[in-house]
Amino acid sequence: MHGKFITIEGGEGVGKSTQIGRLKDFVAGQGVEVVVTREPGGTHRAERIRELLLETSDEPMPSTCELLLMFAARSTHLENVIQPALARGACVICDRFTDATYAYQGGGRNLSTENIATLERMVQGTLRPDLTLLLDAPLDISAARASARNTAAGTSDRFEQERRDFFERVRAAYLDRARQEPKRFAVIDATESLEAVTVAIQQAIAERLLKLSPAPRS
Amino acid sequence: MHGKFITIEGGEGVGKSTQIGRLKDFVAGQGVEVVVTREPGGTHRAERIRELLLETSDEPMPSTCELLLMFAARSTHLENVIQPALARGACVICDRFTDATYAYQGGGRNLSTENIATLERMVQGTLRPDLTLLLDAPLDISAARASARNTAAGTSDRFEQERRDFFERVRAAYLDRARQEPKRFAVIDATESLEAVTVAIQQAIAERLLKLSPAPRS
Ligand SMILES: Nc1ncnc2c1ncn2[C@@H]1O[C@H](COP(=O)(O)OP(=O)(O)OP(=O)(O)O)[C@@H](O)[C@H]1O
Ligand SMILES: Nc1ncnc2c1ncn2[C@@H]1O[C@H](COP(=O)(O)OP(=O)(O)OP(=O)(O)O)[C@@H](O)[C@H]1O
Ligand SMILES: [Mg+2]
Ligand SMILES: [Mg+2]
Repeated sequence: MHGKFITIEGGEGVGKSTQIGRLKDFVAGQGVEVVVTREPGGTHRAERIRELLLETSDEPMPSTCELLLMFAARSTHLENVIQPALARGACVICDRFTDATYAYQGGGRNLSTENIATLERMVQGTLRPDLTLLLDAPLDISAARASARNTAAGTSDRFEQERRDFFERVRAAYLDRARQEPKRFAVIDATESLEAVTVAIQQAIAERLLKLSPAPRS
Repeated sequence: MHGKFITIEGGEGVGKSTQIGRLKDFVAGQGVEVVVTREPGGTHRAERIRELLLETSDEPMPSTCELLLMFAARSTHLENVIQPALARGACVICDRFTDATYAYQGGGRNLSTENIATLERMVQGTLRPDLTLLLDAPLDISAARASARNTAAGTSDRFEQERRDFFERVRAAYLDRARQEPKRFAVIDATESLEAVTVAIQQAIAERLLKLSPAPRS
């Protein structure tokens, strides 16, 4: 009787926000309640934790502190937004989730995957996404998209200031997770046009989550 | 070649801040650099996490979120303040530390001690206080002291609004930890006069930490 939990993952500028806007309309068009949210964030407290995570600061950020803040934000987001929405049968679409922690803190920062898995169990219990859409593109493409957008906005955050090898490790860690959990992940070629990516996402949903609405009681 | 790490623990209003002021002068009088700090807090980022922890909010605070925020604050505090101070031979006096997490989140909120111990290892490795001064008093006394002070200030935070049985569990958890680690803990009767408590603390230090300054290289 739970709604479906769909997460969208991938590096900066790969097209997640753009596709989520379209996906939301697609799911709503099937008569299902949709809740769109993002991580880190999604509640007032979690958005304030997000600010602490993204802001540049003179105080060095220990990578363990970053990891614990990510899961603290996730904890209040799950308990106050995601779980209640799933429980009432809504489809939750989340812009990044725990796979991003494995990719950025694990792959990017070389933090122990074991610590991440420990925190995942502590915060989520057995809850995992039903489907994870990984938008994948070579760095040149996603970086160009993100930097065109950031130049317009005139800012970049603590993650966006990382170096190229950091983002290469993030991309590799994402692809590695997709290989490890092929049933949960759909890897989408994000180098294609907006339209083509949208179609690929809708196909993945049709194939993987046959019914978006909760199963009828039997 | 490390300085000594002293923590002061106990319920609200038991006299920790008052005694730390005196202890600081006592240690400095022995020609040792003293760093006084507190938890949650002690750095700019950790003090902002403290605000998230203490403020009352419409958004329910999951106890796991509270626990992760405590250790996130501790992580940046350790890496940016406590460990550098100990490394240069300073005596660090900290107003609450991980025993408070066992007492408040473990005892008070009934969170699993196993999760706390896991996070303690993740954040601290093997670092533990050299001496923990537990100021112990029955609730009637500490609550009266704290409420006299809060009435003057006109505010109370998310913890101070807890009920009596919460603070009974906190006190019991503190005493339990002291029984489990008698070498590290000195339990001080905080019902005594300010002067008598100060003397008891100085005696505990003389007995437990014979030399406050780093041992000479041998
Ligand atoms: N398939 C595509 N082809 C061309 N441009 C695209 C495509 N997808 C997205 N873009 C453009 O790239 C930029 C970044 O897209 P978007 O903000 O959706 O990425 P994002 O993955 O959400 O980035 P971030 O991780 O920074 O939030 C936008 O200007 C968007 O219009
Ligand atoms: N031994 C004592 N006898 C009488 N009054 C005391 C004693 N110790 C402290 N007080 C008074 O009790 C009040 C609380 O003391 P203090 O602020 O030092 O407690 P605390 O443990 O730091 O409290 P909190 O946990 O809220 O920070 C103060 O007004 C202080 O002057
Ligand atoms: Mg986006
Ligand atoms: Mg105090």
